Amino acid sequence: MSDLARWRERADAALQRALPDPHSPPQRLHAAMRHAVLLGGKRMRPLLVYAAGSAFGASVDTLDAPAVAVELIHAYSLVHDDLPAMDDDALRRGQPTVHVAFDEATAVLAGDALQSLAFEVLADADVDATTRVDLLRTLARASGAAGMCGGQALDLAATGNGSSLSVHALEELHSLKTGALIRAAVRMGALCGGASAEELAALDRYAAALGLAFQVRDDILDIEGDSATLGKTAGKDVAQDKATFPALIGLDASRARLDELRRAMDDALSPLGDRANALAALGRMAIERDR
Amino acid sequence: MSDLARWRERADAALQRALPDPHSPPQRLHAAMRHAVLLGGKRMRPLLVYAAGSAFGASVDTLDAPAVAVELIHAYSLVHDDLPAMDDDALRRGQPTVHVAFDEATAVLAGDALQSLAFEVLADADVDATTRVDLLRTLARASGAAGMCGGQALDLAATGNGSSLSVHALEELHSLKTGALIRAAVRMGALCGGASAEELAALDRYAAALGLAFQVRDDILDIEGDSATLGKTAGKDVAQDKATFPALIGLDASRARLDELRRAMDDALSPLGDRANALAALGRMAIERDR
Repeated sequence: MSDLARWRERADAALQRALPDPHSPPQRLHAAMRHAVLLGGKRMRPLLVYAAGSAFGASVDTLDAPAVAVELIHAYSLVHDDLPAMDDDALRRGQPTVHVAFDEATAVLAGDALQSLAFEVLADADVDATTRVDLLRTLARASGAAGMCGGQALDLAATGNGSSLSVHALEELHSLKTGALIRAAVRMGALCGGASAEELAALDRYAAALGLAFQVRDDILDIEGDSATLGKTAGKDVAQDKATFPALIGLDASRARLDELRRAMDDALSPLGDRANALAALGRMAIERDR
Repeated sequence: MSDLARWRERADAALQRALPDPHSPPQRLHAAMRHAVLLGGKRMRPLLVYAAGSAFGASVDTLDAPAVAVELIHAYSLVHDDLPAMDDDALRRGQPTVHVAFDEATAVLAGDALQSLAFEVLADADVDATTRVDLLRTLARASGAAGMCGGQALDLAATGNGSSLSVHALEELHSLKTGALIRAAVRMGALCGGASAEELAALDRYAAALGLAFQVRDDILDIEGDSATLGKTAGKDVAQDKATFPALIGLDASRARLDELRRAMDDALSPLGDRANALAALGRMAIERDR
């Protein structure tokens, strides 16, 4: 089994253990939290934690906590993003979203509780207290107003008049909305491995490029992909007049941007040599994926 | 100026500093976060942090971070609780709630970002790393499915058939919904002061009694209070068939329960002597308040 496949199984098992028992009260809340997290997903952020940590010799055991924590934050953000007041999505990964499978109030609470759980898991991470605080600070900053939530607020403001956004503003939006958490995943893994400030900076360039590449690819797939493969509704960005890279700069220029970002990732990882193989593989997946 | 009045000013100033600049983007998100936190409130949880910490000789500077963090969690929970899908409240402290003053999507995001900010503030607390991790764990547990969010889920389940709840189930609901965060506030203050395990246990008995007393008083005020003094709609519990102490055991028995809880607080605090004066004063306020 490849490292990535092993890590994905490991992340799933660690998430199972971290989530509350569906048979203990309040059952409905617990079931909604599990629904949000355990229905699948690529587990890209946990994989980035394992890949970055392993590149610096962190033991895989110490990486479980940050891998779980970053996925819990990602999962909660999807639950809230899917709410009727936000993107109003009924399907996610081919399954009913949490507010459809349960109800809106439960979806709000389940998202809230998943966020708390992420920080609780990190507070019990199997690393020294100073590193734990660094992990907690990294994830909290990446999740909040200066990170993911801030990016979602910019996205809300742009929806409906997306075609008036500049490419620069669109990249800024994504650097917060998806980029911040991806960078946090890579940084947390590297922190567990004791990476130097210089190594953290190089990895951050890699992670920033990967985050943006992931989003450019997402925008292209919304046009070229089909709903069955994607597990979500294709063509939705265009229908909602969302700002996307193809809408602003065209498909060809979007593909050229992906090539640039691939080179940026390669450059950032080259000092690490073979230790960065898994990170490089994740970078290629972000660019080449078809769902 | 009394200790409590000084601490309240201190908490307000520290909250001001911790919240994001309303003039930097995303402005709407930042403004909503500030609206949620800065419109007032009793600041009971920050006061409990300062009072518990001071009882054990913690410097007031080190207490700012946990005082701010616990209030940010409380404030976010009110924003989400007021949403149309939850309690659907248009007024809070006599002011429009966040989803009314802004919009629902912004209210969801502002609540989410306030939660992240709470943990970010704690990660930068001015105490050693081991204590910081203890603070972070305390607040995360108290906020999540085994604490506040779990209590709100029980409350949702009980609303509409409140009169069928047992008193025991109602106390359990409140011990999570409001009790968990109040206990966390007291514990965080005491942790900053280096309280022993035995002292933490005694303070926890005080905090549990205070949390429940606060709620019993709240239920009585919903019947006896008037909306102008309360700053929220009186009589709402009865209208929604919410489970309340007066509904389940009557007003006289509810008042008797308050007396029991007052004695429980006094017993728990007595070993601390005069050092517990501020904590005792906060206990009396919870029981005697008229709003």
